[in-house]
Amino acid sequence: MTQTNSVPGPVSPVSGHQLAVTPLGLHEVTLTGGFWGQWQRQNREVTTPHALAWLERDGSVDNLRRLGQGDPGPHRGMWFSDSDLYKVLEGVSWDLGREPDEHLAGVVRDMAAIIAAAQEPDGYLNSYVQGGHQVRWDNLVTSHELYCMGHLIQAGVAHKRATGGDELLDVVRRVADCVVRDFGDLRRKDTDGHPEIEMALVELYRVTGHAPYLDLARQLIDVRGHRVLAAEGHFDSAYYLDATPVREQSTVVGHAVRALYLLSGVIDVYLETGEQALLDAAVRQWSSMVASKLYLTGAVGSRFEGESFGDEYELPPDLAYGETCATIALIQASWRLLLATGESRFADVIERALHNLFAASTSVERNAFFYNNPAQRRSARPAAPLDTRPSRAEAPGTRPQWFPCACCPPNIMRTIAALAGHVATRTDDGLQIHLYLPATIDTPVASLTMQTQYPLDGAVTVTVTATREEPWTLALRVPDWCRGASATVNGESVPVGSEGYVRINRTWQTGDVVAFTMPMPARFTVAHPSVDAVRGEVAIERGPVVYCLESPDSPDGVDLNHIEVLVDEPLAERVAEDLPGGPGVVVEVAAVMRDDSAWAGTGWFALDEEPAESGRRVTLTAIPYRLWANRGPSVMRIFVPAQRSDRR
Amino acid sequence: MTQTNSVPGPVSPVSGHQLAVTPLGLHEVTLTGGFWGQWQRQNREVTTPHALAWLERDGSVDNLRRLGQGDPGPHRGMWFSDSDLYKVLEGVSWDLGREPDEHLAGVVRDMAAIIAAAQEPDGYLNSYVQGGHQVRWDNLVTSHELYCMGHLIQAGVAHKRATGGDELLDVVRRVADCVVRDFGDLRRKDTDGHPEIEMALVELYRVTGHAPYLDLARQLIDVRGHRVLAAEGHFDSAYYLDATPVREQSTVVGHAVRALYLLSGVIDVYLETGEQALLDAAVRQWSSMVASKLYLTGAVGSRFEGESFGDEYELPPDLAYGETCATIALIQASWRLLLATGESRFADVIERALHNLFAASTSVERNAFFYNNPAQRRSARPAAPLDTRPSRAEAPGTRPQWFPCACCPPNIMRTIAALAGHVATRTDDGLQIHLYLPATIDTPVASLTMQTQYPLDGAVTVTVTATREEPWTLALRVPDWCRGASATVNGESVPVGSEGYVRINRTWQTGDVVAFTMPMPARFTVAHPSVDAVRGEVAIERGPVVYCLESPDSPDGVDLNHIEVLVDEPLAERVAEDLPGGPGVVVEVAAVMRDDSAWAGTGWFALDEEPAESGRRVTLTAIPYRLWANRGPSVMRIFVPAQRSDRR
Repeated sequence: MTQTNSVPGPVSPVSGHQLAVTPLGLHEVTLTGGFWGQWQRQNREVTTPHALAWLERDGSVDNLRRLGQGDPGPHRGMWFSDSDLYKVLEGVSWDLGREPDEHLAGVVRDMAAIIAAAQEPDGYLNSYVQGGHQVRWDNLVTSHELYCMGHLIQAGVAHKRATGGDELLDVVRRVADCVVRDFGDLRRKDTDGHPEIEMALVELYRVTGHAPYLDLARQLIDVRGHRVLAAEGHFDSAYYLDATPVREQSTVVGHAVRALYLLSGVIDVYLETGEQALLDAAVRQWSSMVASKLYLTGAVGSRFEGESFGDEYELPPDLAYGETCATIALIQASWRLLLATGESRFADVIERALHNLFAASTSVERNAFFYNNPAQRRSARPAAPLDTRPSRAEAPGTRPQWFPCACCPPNIMRTIAALAGHVATRTDDGLQIHLYLPATIDTPVASLTMQTQYPLDGAVTVTVTATREEPWTLALRVPDWCRGASATVNGESVPVGSEGYVRINRTWQTGDVVAFTMPMPARFTVAHPSVDAVRGEVAIERGPVVYCLESPDSPDGVDLNHIEVLVDEPLAERVAEDLPGGPGVVVEVAAVMRDDSAWAGTGWFALDEEPAESGRRVTLTAIPYRLWANRGPSVMRIFVPAQRSDRR
Repeated sequence: MTQTNSVPGPVSPVSGHQLAVTPLGLHEVTLTGGFWGQWQRQNREVTTPHALAWLERDGSVDNLRRLGQGDPGPHRGMWFSDSDLYKVLEGVSWDLGREPDEHLAGVVRDMAAIIAAAQEPDGYLNSYVQGGHQVRWDNLVTSHELYCMGHLIQAGVAHKRATGGDELLDVVRRVADCVVRDFGDLRRKDTDGHPEIEMALVELYRVTGHAPYLDLARQLIDVRGHRVLAAEGHFDSAYYLDATPVREQSTVVGHAVRALYLLSGVIDVYLETGEQALLDAAVRQWSSMVASKLYLTGAVGSRFEGESFGDEYELPPDLAYGETCATIALIQASWRLLLATGESRFADVIERALHNLFAASTSVERNAFFYNNPAQRRSARPAAPLDTRPSRAEAPGTRPQWFPCACCPPNIMRTIAALAGHVATRTDDGLQIHLYLPATIDTPVASLTMQTQYPLDGAVTVTVTATREEPWTLALRVPDWCRGASATVNGESVPVGSEGYVRINRTWQTGDVVAFTMPMPARFTVAHPSVDAVRGEVAIERGPVVYCLESPDSPDGVDLNHIEVLVDEPLAERVAEDLPGGPGVVVEVAAVMRDDSAWAGTGWFALDEEPAESGRRVTLTAIPYRLWANRGPSVMRIFVPAQRSDRR
């Protein structure tokens, strides 16, 4: 068992007063294989060198390096390219905390030296501005200066926590002190068009105990909502989260990543200050989002236009934007709300997001990425070009290796590297397990080993390998999709209540074995009747996994644009050995391939002249959505028109 | 009756060989009131001064004026702002042809002088390039140089035909000669990223008889399709209509306006050269578009991203882009195909486009415009700001007065000014009437008076006021939506066949009266089953008019996001006196306001746990879609979920 006062991981509030559940320390959870453990290894061995190479190639490192050499030259890439490097450094730092490595440590040291050399004497740091392309603080609406600094701060915090080193943190404190000097105590009343620094400043406060960082985070939240931020002829203040004060906002609007980064900062400030209005606003926005602006895959931000949230129930699969970063921000906000409330619904959303959109964002080889994530593809688009960076607008048929705006891949990297932090929490009364994956949990309360093939099946075994003597409660999340969960301790049944967690209170002994079983038959899912885009359609889910139909699995002659599934016939499951990334469960579904020839040439009919439907029976194979587009360009859909056999 | 060799109107082919039907001359059709006649008057009295004022205010005129004064200064507005002025001049020119006016004629003379003074000695003309902002012909992918010149050519052609004046035509010929000199005979093998000049050059050939213009138009079509045009990190060659050679293209792709301007040019070249492969390609593309990429409103180009065509059946109403210019381009292409084939389906699409999207694009006062036209609005957005130009991205709740990219309003103006040209055609055998509106038709075959309140009702009376002595055939289009059309001549029934036109061949007498009746009960319409976005939904149509439900007409407590219409109950029609723009027919429909409270907090359910539907009966009032957003910001929808009473 670990001692108390372990090394804090990501999002480690100093004030315990607002914590319904407390995050575990950086070394208190270790992934021990399985899907996520394997990805964590690939993240280190494949994605990290891939990303570092691209950051050199696209100028992101060089923009800073040349500054330190006194010869900035023309800036390459996006004006906020610094942030890509910072996010990679954050990810590598968490990874170093997990498993030290001299080479990787050296990479971070070198980068920290490059960044330190680029920094102005007064602490300011932004390669685009310092390169002479813009005036400092002159265009906060679009400059991303505080946004980039926020990511640098997060990298510095991660590096300090994970390695104990001060190289990056020293740079970060000078940056933060510069911002406090210029903006603190309302010396400036404006803020960045792209929120991010708010949560970073709270984390820096947690590491340093320096209150002005927390005060500034709150100020940067307070100044929003007065319609100052807007770019004429481009985006309005709702896009910049500046149309309504945070405490009055009832739902999520505007640019999805910005909205959820801001929300995460708002909850972070609540977690330290206890200002109830902030939590209320955050829960209100989150609840509205989950009820009416969240895709089944965990995608948020339906609109290409402004990469923004749409109206309620505006959730078209074929035109879903679903930026990878937005779902990562959703996970960040949901995790903070879980800490604040202890409610399982926040973990349910995290699980949904991780197993579906987040997992789909990255190729099974972990070296290619989707920026936006469609939930339906009606035609197979050309494959992403190798070795170049297509714009996100082109939305190719397979995952590109990198992007001109490369925000997503580093965001994926840091999320995977720090994933252990989302597995479990503690209270004075015990431990709560939120995510099921092979792991060891090593806390002052007890040490546990969790074994599972989840989500391949729903069996989880938790073995107590050490425990305190006093009784404590082990809480296991019962996912919202799960019906009929059961649990035993050493073979004896324990009751499973109807709330979000099975809670088992007892005097635990080393060697106790908890067997938790979540039945996960494949099921059909229907969307809210106001989601016109998938009206009369069903999706297939199994446990936390959203399935899709993809053209490589279609029988000859089947076009996924003309099928209907027979929802009164049973779904059949089988293990397929040849799925991308390894064996997995596929679902076979009875369907009809419609013969739409009576519609040839026209897009509509008068209702009373509508041709009768006809077609032939086919059996289709659904695969986990996260695996799509790993076998070349394809047609894909999640929701499918529903038909009953008896109505044909 | 007019003499032959009347003044040609827009699109007047020189070669008769490819004409199934021949357009009438500029003075052979006169609108005599009604909806379109009134709009034509408003276009002259309201829209024209409104547009001229904005063109001064936004710099479009001044950019050219300052060039002529030798002091270009910084260019204001879009780099293709010249084209806005040219399109307005085209519209005013057609209007002058309709009804001469010394003031308006003076405006055109003044503008022609400004344009002439700006022109380079070698004929080149582009205020952005001449202002030093770009190098001539250096960036054809995005420069819009040939695009702007195309619009100038169209203005010059219109002015020449309508007024006989040479002021603009002289400028235009120097421009065209400059392009021929630099591009003709494949001296350059590239072309503009935005097609437009192709149809302009064919029209200039028609006015001048100068074959190199036609040759160049064909060349600019031939050079497309070799993936030369692309803007890295921005748009691909499909967007620029350069991914596939025109003759091989099977469906419409890419930027919708560009695609249909190019298609119009392709048909124009066919009409003069008779190259069958061009017509085949055009009919193939058009047919594919109408079957799977056309909205009920006549909107085309479903995607915001790239203002482009989507995949087949990708027709989401809430995220419809539906640029006004794209539907105008659809009308242009369809008209040319009607001339080439004489088939009613092309006129059917023109009618649909005119009465719905085109009419909806403009406020009933005719001084405000939609750039993009949603087919569903789930929430009421803020009204368009008065007296400023919002970007199209903001997509406000009401029509803005003008736009930073002001392509649409002038396009509407020139279409309305020249609308008489689309009403009827002739053959050696007689006359064909394609559009029903109050008009006089005055041709060498006969003179007719058409009286109707269409589409208020479906009764059309055609009176022969003069006729040649030999028998001829009067053809009246039977719209695709019409069932049970009937016709009488002097009270005696004549047979109405099943093809697209009633054809009445006889020896006509002055005073003969044809009464043509199109029953137009309100009807429900369903979309192709592959259009997932409106699956299980119905629209309401009456005659050529698409209806919508809009929140100002909703009873208290009704939210249009939660209703279902009862499709087995009758639709009721009544005349409403208080509609925007005057009295009209509204349709009352039985519906259910769903109680979705069982869904509170969640966006989906397992199919076997889906809450039973409940709700209360309401009666809703549908208004013509063209009138929406004339009463302030609103919620609006065209397609509505369908329900049968017996299934509740």
